[in-house]
Amino acid sequence: MMPNNIHHHPMRLFPVDKYTREVANNIYQHVKGLPIISPHGHTDPKWFSENQSFANAHELLVLPDHYLLRMFYSQGISLAELGVSSGQGEVVADARSAWQCFAKYFYLFRGTPSSIWLNHVFSEVFNIDCALNESTADYYFDAIGEALTKAEFLPRNLFTQFNIELLATTEGATDSLEHHKQIQQSVWQGRVITTYRPDDVINPFSGNFQNKLKEFQLLTGENTFTWQGYLNAHRKRRLDFIEMGATATDHGHASAQTAYLTNTESKALFEKILTGTFSEQEATMFQAQMLTEMARMSIDDGLVMQLHPGVHRNHNKMLFNNYGSDKGADIPKSTGYVEELKPLLNAFGNDSRFKLIMFTLDESAYSRELAPLAGHYPCLKLGPAWWFHDSPEGMMRYREQTTESAGFYNTVGFNDDTRAFFSIPARHDVARRIDATFLARLVCEHRIEEVDAFELAKDLTYNLPKKAYNLNRRNDL
Amino acid sequence: MMPNNIHHHPMRLFPVDKYTREVANNIYQHVKGLPIISPHGHTDPKWFSENQSFANAHELLVLPDHYLLRMFYSQGISLAELGVSSGQGEVVADARSAWQCFAKYFYLFRGTPSSIWLNHVFSEVFNIDCALNESTADYYFDAIGEALTKAEFLPRNLFTQFNIELLATTEGATDSLEHHKQIQQSVWQGRVITTYRPDDVINPFSGNFQNKLKEFQLLTGENTFTWQGYLNAHRKRRLDFIEMGATATDHGHASAQTAYLTNTESKALFEKILTGTFSEQEATMFQAQMLTEMARMSIDDGLVMQLHPGVHRNHNKMLFNNYGSDKGADIPKSTGYVEELKPLLNAFGNDSRFKLIMFTLDESAYSRELAPLAGHYPCLKLGPAWWFHDSPEGMMRYREQTTESAGFYNTVGFNDDTRAFFSIPARHDVARRIDATFLARLVCEHRIEEVDAFELAKDLTYNLPKKAYNLNRRNDL
Amino acid sequence: MMPNNIHHHPMRLFPVDKYTREVANNIYQHVKGLPIISPHGHTDPKWFSENQSFANAHELLVLPDHYLLRMFYSQGISLAELGVSSGQGEVVADARSAWQCFAKYFYLFRGTPSSIWLNHVFSEVFNIDCALNESTADYYFDAIGEALTKAEFLPRNLFTQFNIELLATTEGATDSLEHHKQIQQSVWQGRVITTYRPDDVINPFSGNFQNKLKEFQLLTGENTFTWQGYLNAHRKRRLDFIEMGATATDHGHASAQTAYLTNTESKALFEKILTGTFSEQEATMFQAQMLTEMARMSIDDGLVMQLHPGVHRNHNKMLFNNYGSDKGADIPKSTGYVEELKPLLNAFGNDSRFKLIMFTLDESAYSRELAPLAGHYPCLKLGPAWWFHDSPEGMMRYREQTTESAGFYNTVGFNDDTRAFFSIPARHDVARRIDATFLARLVCEHRIEEVDAFELAKDLTYNLPKKAYNLNRRNDL
Repeated sequence: MMPNNIHHHPMRLFPVDKYTREVANNIYQHVKGLPIISPHGHTDPKWFSENQSFANAHELLVLPDHYLLRMFYSQGISLAELGVSSGQGEVVADARSAWQCFAKYFYLFRGTPSSIWLNHVFSEVFNIDCALNESTADYYFDAIGEALTKAEFLPRNLFTQFNIELLATTEGATDSLEHHKQIQQSVWQGRVITTYRPDDVINPFSGNFQNKLKEFQLLTGENTFTWQGYLNAHRKRRLDFIEMGATATDHGHASAQTAYLTNTESKALFEKILTGTFSEQEATMFQAQMLTEMARMSIDDGLVMQLHPGVHRNHNKMLFNNYGSDKGADIPKSTGYVEELKPLLNAFGNDSRFKLIMFTLDESAYSRELAPLAGHYPCLKLGPAWWFHDSPEGMMRYREQTTESAGFYNTVGFNDDTRAFFSIPARHDVARRIDATFLARLVCEHRIEEVDAFELAKDLTYNLPKKAYNLNRRNDL
Repeated sequence: MMPNNIHHHPMRLFPVDKYTREVANNIYQHVKGLPIISPHGHTDPKWFSENQSFANAHELLVLPDHYLLRMFYSQGISLAELGVSSGQGEVVADARSAWQCFAKYFYLFRGTPSSIWLNHVFSEVFNIDCALNESTADYYFDAIGEALTKAEFLPRNLFTQFNIELLATTEGATDSLEHHKQIQQSVWQGRVITTYRPDDVINPFSGNFQNKLKEFQLLTGENTFTWQGYLNAHRKRRLDFIEMGATATDHGHASAQTAYLTNTESKALFEKILTGTFSEQEATMFQAQMLTEMARMSIDDGLVMQLHPGVHRNHNKMLFNNYGSDKGADIPKSTGYVEELKPLLNAFGNDSRFKLIMFTLDESAYSRELAPLAGHYPCLKLGPAWWFHDSPEGMMRYREQTTESAGFYNTVGFNDDTRAFFSIPARHDVARRIDATFLARLVCEHRIEEVDAFELAKDLTYNLPKKAYNLNRRNDL
Repeated sequence: MMPNNIHHHPMRLFPVDKYTREVANNIYQHVKGLPIISPHGHTDPKWFSENQSFANAHELLVLPDHYLLRMFYSQGISLAELGVSSGQGEVVADARSAWQCFAKYFYLFRGTPSSIWLNHVFSEVFNIDCALNESTADYYFDAIGEALTKAEFLPRNLFTQFNIELLATTEGATDSLEHHKQIQQSVWQGRVITTYRPDDVINPFSGNFQNKLKEFQLLTGENTFTWQGYLNAHRKRRLDFIEMGATATDHGHASAQTAYLTNTESKALFEKILTGTFSEQEATMFQAQMLTEMARMSIDDGLVMQLHPGVHRNHNKMLFNNYGSDKGADIPKSTGYVEELKPLLNAFGNDSRFKLIMFTLDESAYSRELAPLAGHYPCLKLGPAWWFHDSPEGMMRYREQTTESAGFYNTVGFNDDTRAFFSIPARHDVARRIDATFLARLVCEHRIEEVDAFELAKDLTYNLPKKAYNLNRRNDL
C-alpha cells in the first residue's frame, strides 16, 4: 500500500484551482532562487566554526527535533526507543534502531509540516527518491550516513549550497560567543551572526537564576547584584553581541506583560528578587519591567527587540524531571497583548529608533489584537506564524487574519526558528509557496494587481526581513 | 419560488474544484459503506429493548431536537406553537399543527447542518422526494406517520438498515440499566452499550445532589456519605456499566479544571460539600478533584474517560423555570485547558493504561491548546468537532486547525452525540464527506499521497473510533 | 512597474473557481441594483442639511479616515505630513502636499479593504481610470477638486446617485439635532435619520461627564443629578431622537457587561458616581446597569438597541494627548458575552418588544458565544462584521462562523459604519459581493438551492436590515 516514490511534488502546496495555481507558481518562480535570510533561529554556531561532519541520520534529524519526539511520545512510543537517554542508565536504542523506529512510524506525520520538511531534506539534500518507511529505513540510514562523510555535506559547504545569505543564531546572556569569534576570525565569508537572549538572567523562576547572575558578573566585571550594575552588565553584553554581528535581541516570556516602573521602584523590586523570597506577582513584574528596560537599551544601541510570549514551558513534570527541556512538552496558552504591551508602548511606541517584533502562539490574537496594534504603532511589526503555526495552514491563517488590518508592510517576512540546519531550505520553501498561494488568490480575486504580487513576494521573501532586522547596515549588502 | 425537489445532491459537501471533487468523491466512496461506529450518543436504550414503533413525525423529529427548538425560539416562535408543553396548562399545538409550523419555518435552517441532516432523513430514510414547506407539511406528516407503522421502521430493524455496528448510549450513575440488561438478555444481536455519566452525583450545584447520593447508596450498598464509600460506589457502578458493555465514561463539567488533592484534603472537601454549605470555589474544586479520581479509576478498570467542558447550561432562566433543560439555551464559553488539565495530566498523563478524550466548544483552543496537548501526552486524544461545531464548516475548521500539531492519529473519528436516532446515518455521512473533502485537498495540494488518503479515510471512519474507545476487546470484532 | 490602470475589476472578490464565480456573479447581479439601506453610520447630517460642496480630495478622503491615518502612522509617516494638525503650531503639510504623500504610500494598502474602497470611489464616483501613485497624485487632486465643484457632487445629489434609500447618522445625547430638523423641514425627500448614542452621559470615565450631565439637564429640563431625573432625561431625549426619525440607539462600551440592580441600588450607585469619587468597578457597574435601563426604555419606546463592546480606546497616550480621539489608536480586546449579557437577557431577553443587535471585534466569539446566543434569544440579532473586520476576509469569516449556529435570519444585513460618505456605495458593494460569494459556495457544494440563494441575497441586502432596524414602520416604505 505504501507508495514507492517520495512525496515531493514540484507543485506542492499550491492551490487546486488551475488558473490560481499557475499564478501562484509564477509568483513562486520569481522568488524561489532568492537567497535565504534567516534572522531568527537556533542552529549551533559550532557547526560553522569547526566545520566538522555530522554524525548520522539519527543524530542529525531525529534527536534534536522536538516536533518529532512529541508526536511519537503522544502515540506511546518511548523516548528510549527513539534513542533519547534520560541519563539514568535505561536501555536506549542505538542510532540505527532508533532510526528504524522513526521510519516505521513516519506515517504519523501525514498532514503535518514535519513530513513536508523531511521529504524535502530527503529528496533535495540527500537525493533519495523512495519514500521513508520500515522497509527503506536501513537504506536511508546508510545513504544519509555516507553522504554526511563527503566534503559537500560539511556545514560551510551546505551553507553555500543552501543559498543562505545570512543566518542568525541565538545565545544566552552568559554565552562566551567563542564560536562566533572563531567564525569572524576565519577566512570563511559566510555571514553567521548571534542574537542576544537574556531570559536566563531575567527570569527569576529559572532554577539557576543566582548562579547565572554570578556568571554574568564574571563576564562583564559589573556588580550584577545591584540594579545599576545589573543593567550595565546587560548593556555591555549587548555590545559584545553587536560585535559578533547581532542586530536583535530575543525574549521568551510567559506573558507579554510589560511595566513602566520608576527607577526607585525597579531597584527595590530587583533587591526583593535577589533575596530569593518573592511572590509570583513580583517575579512577573520584574520580567515585565525588564522588557521595558530592554526596549530602552534598544533605543540606545539599535538592537531590534523580539518578544515570544505565551508558552507554558515543560508542562509535563515527569518528562521534564527525567529528560529536561525541549522534548515537546511546551504548550501554548491564551495570551493578551492590549493591556500587557501598553506600558512599554506608551513609553517607547512612538520612538522612531525603536523596533519591536511580536510573535504569538494564540492565533485568536492575530485579527483581534496584533494586526490592529502593528497597524498603528510605528515601532511594532508582526513576526511570522511561529512554532506550532509554522505550517501551511498556520501561515495561511496568518496572512488571512493579519493582512487586512496590518497590511503586508507591517510584517517581517519568514523566520525558520529552527535548530534543524538541514531543514532551513525546506522551511523557507514552504513559506515562499504559501505566500505565493495567498498572493495568487488576491490576484485572481482581483484584489491586487499581478505586478504588485510579484513585488510583494520579493518584499516578503527578501526585503522585509532585511529591513526589519536592520540587516542592511553593513557595507557588504 | 420554493424548489419542488428535496435538496439532497449526491455530490453535496464536496469541494467545488472539479478535480478535487473527483478525488473527494473517490475517497468518500471508499468509506461510504463502512459500518457506523457510534461510541458517544444519547439515544434511548428503551427503543432497542422494547422495539416499539415511533409515534409520529412531530414526536420523532421535532420534540427532542434542541437544535430545532432554539432556532424557532430565536425567531419569536413559541414553544407552544411547536407542540412543547410547559406542563402549566397552556394551549399547546397538537402534533400535526406543530409539524405544520415546523414546515412553514423550515427555511430558517438554510445553511445550517439541521437542514442537511433532516433532508437526508426525509430522502434516504422515508424516501420522500419533495421539499418540506408549508404546502407539503401534511403530505410529510402522513407519509412519515404511515412509514412508522411498518416493521422495517422498528428500532432494531432501523439499527440494521442504518448499518450500525455499535451504538453507545449514556446513562447517569443512578440509572437502573434495565433496558441495557433487556437488550443483553434478548436474542437480538445489535450491539448497544452504555456509558457512565456520573455528573449528577458529582456536581454539587445540581439541585438534587443529596437525593442523588441517597439513590447512589441504595444502588451500591455503600455509604455514599463518606468519602471512601462514595468512591467505592463509583467503582461498583462503573463495574455495573462495564457489565452492560460500557467502555467509556463521560463528564460534562463547566470547566476543564482538574485538581490533585491528598486523600485527607479530598475527604475534608467532600465532607464540607455534604454540609450543603459550600462556596462556589469549593464546589468547583470538588468537581476538579473528582475528574482526577475518575482518571485514577479508569487506570484500574480500563474505562476511557471523556471530558466535555465549557458550556453555560440553562442560560435563559425563564425558559429553564418553565420548560427545564435541553431546550436550546445552553451557551458555550471561553475555555482554558493548559493550567486546568495540568494536575490530572501530571498525575496520570504518562500512564499507558489511561485514555482521556477531550472535547471543546471553544474553537480558539483547537490550534492553541488542544492540538499541542494531544500531540504530546500519550493519554490524550482529541474528540471530534462537537455540538455547535458538528457541521460542515465546524468539522473543516477542526481538521484545518488540529491536524498540523496533533496529526490525524491523535483524533478519535466521529461522534454523532445525538438523541435523534434517525439522524445518525446523516451525521456520519456528513463527517465522512467532510473528511474526504479535507483529505482530497491535501492530495491535490500534494501534501499527502492519494493512497495514504484512502487509508486515512478508513482510519478516521472506522479504525480510530474502535481503537480510541477500546471497542476491539470483545471477540465479535 | 506600477500598473497604469486602476484596479477595479468587475469580477473582483468573486471566487476563483469558474463555475462558482458564475453563480456568485448571478447572485450579485440580482442584488447589485437594490437601494442602499444604511442603518448605522457616522456621516455628518450637516452635509445633507446645508448641501454645500466638499472642499478637496485631501479633506474629503484622507483627513477623516482613521483607517488611512493609522496605517501611515505605523510606517513612520507623521500626521503632520498627512496634513493633520495637533493645534500646537507645528508645520503641517497643505492639502496638496498631504495628498501627494498619501499617493506615494498608497501601495501600503495592498491587500487591505481601504484600497478596494478607494479604488471604487476613484473609479466609479470620479471616473478616474489610472492608478493612484506618486506620479498621478496631482492629476487626482485636480480632477477630484474640479469634480467637487459640480452640482452633481453636492451631498443630496450624491445621496440620490448612490441609490441610498435610508441613511442613519449617530448623534450624542446632548446633540441639538438641528441638522436633522433642517433636513425634515426641507423640501428634500432623502431619508436621513438619527441614532441615539448616549455614551457621553453614561460613561463616568469620559473626562467631561459632569459637564455633559449639565448640558443634558439644560436640554431636557430634568434634574439629571437625581436618578429619576437622569432616567427621565434619557426618556425625553429618546423621544426627541425618534421625532428625528431614529429607530435605534447605539452603545459603545468597553465590555458587554450588563447588570440588573434594584432601583434602590441603582440610585445609590448613581449618587456615588456623581460624587466624582468612585472605583473602576463602580463605574463599570454603572455602565452595566445603564445598558439594562436602555433595554427597559427600548421596550417602552420601540428603539432597537445596538451594543458595540470590546475596544480599548485611545491606546496610544501621546497620540491622544496631541491629536485626540479617532486617529487609529483604538485596539480591540478579548471580549466575553455569556456571563456579561446574562443579567440583561434574563430580564428582557424573552420580551417580544425588545431587540438587541450585538457586535464584536473578537472574532473568536462568533462561533463560540454570539451565534449560539443569537440562535436562541428572540431579542438578539448579530450585527455584521465590524470595523477591523468589515473586509473581504472578515466578512467571509463572519458568515462561515455564524451561519451554522445562528442561521442567516438572526443576522441583520450590512452596516457601513462609516464617516466617509463617498465610500458608502463601495462598502455595500463589497458586502454584496462577499455574501454572493458565500452563497455561491453553498449552492455549488449543494448545501442550499440556487433559488434560495437568490432569495437570501435579497434578504441579506435589503429585507433584513429594514426588518431588524424597524425601518418598515413609516408609510413611505
